[in-house]
Amino acid sequence: MDDASFPTAGAADATSQTERVIASLREMVLRGDFRPGERLAELTLVPRLGASRTPVRLALDRLAHEGLLEPLPSGGFRIREFAIADIWDAIEVRGVLEGTAARLAAERLTDADDLSRLQQCCRDIERLDSSNAADVARYVEIHDRFQEELGRLAKSDILVRTIESVVGLTFAVSVSSVLGDAESSERSQTALIALEYHRAIVDAIEHRQGTRAEDLAREYSRMARRNLVRAAQDKERFRHVPGASLIRMPAGHSSR
Amino acid sequence: MDDASFPTAGAADATSQTERVIASLREMVLRGDFRPGERLAELTLVPRLGASRTPVRLALDRLAHEGLLEPLPSGGFRIREFAIADIWDAIEVRGVLEGTAARLAAERLTDADDLSRLQQCCRDIERLDSSNAADVARYVEIHDRFQEELGRLAKSDILVRTIESVVGLTFAVSVSSVLGDAESSERSQTALIALEYHRAIVDAIEHRQGTRAEDLAREYSRMARRNLVRAAQDKERFRHVPGASLIRMPAGHSSR
Amino acid sequence: MDDASFPTAGAADATSQTERVIASLREMVLRGDFRPGERLAELTLVPRLGASRTPVRLALDRLAHEGLLEPLPSGGFRIREFAIADIWDAIEVRGVLEGTAARLAAERLTDADDLSRLQQCCRDIERLDSSNAADVARYVEIHDRFQEELGRLAKSDILVRTIESVVGLTFAVSVSSVLGDAESSERSQTALIALEYHRAIVDAIEHRQGTRAEDLAREYSRMARRNLVRAAQDKERFRHVPGASLIRMPAGHSSR
Amino acid sequence: MDDASFPTAGAADATSQTERVIASLREMVLRGDFRPGERLAELTLVPRLGASRTPVRLALDRLAHEGLLEPLPSGGFRIREFAIADIWDAIEVRGVLEGTAARLAAERLTDADDLSRLQQCCRDIERLDSSNAADVARYVEIHDRFQEELGRLAKSDILVRTIESVVGLTFAVSVSSVLGDAESSERSQTALIALEYHRAIVDAIEHRQGTRAEDLAREYSRMARRNLVRAAQDKERFRHVPGASLIRMPAGHSSR
Repeated sequence: MDDASFPTAGAADATSQTERVIASLREMVLRGDFRPGERLAELTLVPRLGASRTPVRLALDRLAHEGLLEPLPSGGFRIREFAIADIWDAIEVRGVLEGTAARLAAERLTDADDLSRLQQCCRDIERLDSSNAADVARYVEIHDRFQEELGRLAKSDILVRTIESVVGLTFAVSVSSVLGDAESSERSQTALIALEYHRAIVDAIEHRQGTRAEDLAREYSRMARRNLVRAAQDKERFRHVPGASLIRMPAGHSSR
Repeated sequence: MDDASFPTAGAADATSQTERVIASLREMVLRGDFRPGERLAELTLVPRLGASRTPVRLALDRLAHEGLLEPLPSGGFRIREFAIADIWDAIEVRGVLEGTAARLAAERLTDADDLSRLQQCCRDIERLDSSNAADVARYVEIHDRFQEELGRLAKSDILVRTIESVVGLTFAVSVSSVLGDAESSERSQTALIALEYHRAIVDAIEHRQGTRAEDLAREYSRMARRNLVRAAQDKERFRHVPGASLIRMPAGHSSR
Repeated sequence: MDDASFPTAGAADATSQTERVIASLREMVLRGDFRPGERLAELTLVPRLGASRTPVRLALDRLAHEGLLEPLPSGGFRIREFAIADIWDAIEVRGVLEGTAARLAAERLTDADDLSRLQQCCRDIERLDSSNAADVARYVEIHDRFQEELGRLAKSDILVRTIESVVGLTFAVSVSSVLGDAESSERSQTALIALEYHRAIVDAIEHRQGTRAEDLAREYSRMARRNLVRAAQDKERFRHVPGASLIRMPAGHSSR
Repeated sequence: MDDASFPTAGAADATSQTERVIASLREMVLRGDFRPGERLAELTLVPRLGASRTPVRLALDRLAHEGLLEPLPSGGFRIREFAIADIWDAIEVRGVLEGTAARLAAERLTDADDLSRLQQCCRDIERLDSSNAADVARYVEIHDRFQEELGRLAKSDILVRTIESVVGLTFAVSVSSVLGDAESSERSQTALIALEYHRAIVDAIEHRQGTRAEDLAREYSRMARRNLVRAAQDKERFRHVPGASLIRMPAGHSSR
């Protein structure tokens, strides 16, 4: 009875332990535990992550593949530093892919009933109270649900996987992530525009207008760009954006 | 002097050994050394790949992340089986991303001289002799050069990385990969159409017509789909398509 | 000395008289002076328009060419009746063409200074007071100025002419034409979204993002559709929409 | 019993006479009977067109509205002169509109059987013998049939009307109009590429891929541009292109 045909409980544990280590390391990187350019040493990470060497090595490899770390020619990895332009491009690529999801959802829709979850998301956004800062978290949840449902309606695993591989590099600067600290009027305007976009995307899919759905979803994701610009104008607010410490701001702006 | 600050020669070797093991395993999977659904045992792979356990484990993780393997809930990995629709979608996503590269190249062009390598590719295609089956390999090389140059002109690392992550799942069914065995007339028609597309893309970029460049590159990559359909009609020819053994063909078609 | 080489003052007068007669007849048709399907008799129109037969005949021919009248197989013309779907399609075609203007403006921009008039339009919208119903007229003027400037930057006479030929059939249901009677909150939301679109279009042109400019302008013009739907829900308000009497509303809705 | 309610046979005759006069004048203008810039005198045209003054006046007004004539500030009309850029733009606008027809056909398709006429067009193109110059005329007919069917499937009168208003200014430089005199190899290459496009458009509509259908039809119509460039390289061939005499060629090229 060998490892090949009958995995022991230990094997499954190993897989989930690896995923846990990857998630922990990613969080450490994004919240700024390391400086951009800093070399990550496997041996130092073992005690910090409370894991054995193999999962740590797997986590380093995975984050390098995701683009948060750079492999060094000498072996090992270092924290990558991002220019603002890198973030812009990540947002653009994400928008292109989310636009494709919206288009495929329109082209592949067979039953209008399949739109019920998207419609529910729109109703949920309508009910948000933009004067209430706590509702921002709720908006984030609704938006994520909307994107997930778009992926489901697009009926394409590879598209969903590709979107996931890019989202990490947009530093989650979603339309909402920077709004927790914003003025109430700014929040209510953003909520209004977000509602417009969500409704229009659902309308486009319902009427099989794939081009329109793609264009809308593409443009909507570009709002993340503006949100990042706004956040960067306020040092205190910017510190809360995940991954902010990895971004090299133009001269005159201090991100730390 | 520890591993963290001064990597030994051994560390660099380890990295390149890992990359070599990943490449070997990927090649084994694509040429059909395993059956779809077959479980891959780390211990069995160690001797076959001539590597120690850690690089084998890293290779399994990487190919799972790329989508060629599936992680099992019980731990471990198995060979993924692909439906034809999965390949279609991979081709579609690749086309969307290569289209984005062409669009950004048009939007970001600052100097017409930067087009010289793309123009050289067009001249190289013109000079191909489609009656000569050997020139197919040369076409593949020119096409790859063209795509690489588009990526360079798009000036976006993340876009290039994302394209690379998808290309693997299109099973390299590029416009040319199935043409080595084709009739001369089929090759010459395909070459003619390919030349049309390459020229039109360069023309669009030169005149800053981003939309047109995107549309052309998107549609061009869809030729891979037709090539796959043609290849699948001929069992013998199909066997030469990398990854063919992983594709579940519709009933009535035997891919093995 | 004949009419061919030396036009008398009378010839120029004739041309401007014809244009005046065409404008008068168009206005009569749009404000509902005739019923849909009603036959227009040249002889009856002569006294009503205070013009001689030839300009009246020219005006009938022109409005038929524009699509407001239908030529009858028996000779003569009648007032055309429009289904809601006809208006939707006119709005869609207009959006496609205005989108093309925005795209060409981006592709053909040579000097960022050329954007100053568009930027001025954005500042003018910002300064509008949405609590003031009178500012709606001002918004209409700014929007028209914006579209005219887009046409100028597109550098294409034929595109501008084609847009003009379609605008008439959208019944001027511009984003604003129905807002004079709207609630203040509805006006302020519409103004906010309109400002978003105008700014984003200017940003896209400035960065030579032709695709984005096209998509935005296309979607923006679709707001006219929603405005028409809203207007149609209020009989009193709907009566003020030019051409409303020519639209056959679905059963249950009375437009007169 | 007056003209308003009971049109006499004379009224219907008048309408058809007017349409005949418009067609004759358009043909005279396109085949180069007048020089660009030449003033058209109503009185001189009356005997040449064998019509009375009113239909001649209507014909002048219509061609001015179509864009072939320019109204003079002094009254009257003159033959318009076109720059090459005007033709490019007309082709671009036509492509945008024909692309919209293809997109709407995809979005509005309810029954795959509705594609039978488009499929027949593809089979008809396949059967053409490109070594036979006479088959060029047949290709023109098939292509026109294809476009007409696209318009029908788009289910939009206004779109079809708008396309018609633009086609005149592309000077009918369709993919085929210049091929009658071309070399056999040039004809066969053009036929091959045309077949590719027609098939791909039908495939896109069948699978409800509106974006793809739009992009393909847009790009296909740009082939007219290349055809015009080719035709212009051969003075003798160029003379056969309708409207060629109205186009101001760049210095060094004589079009007359």
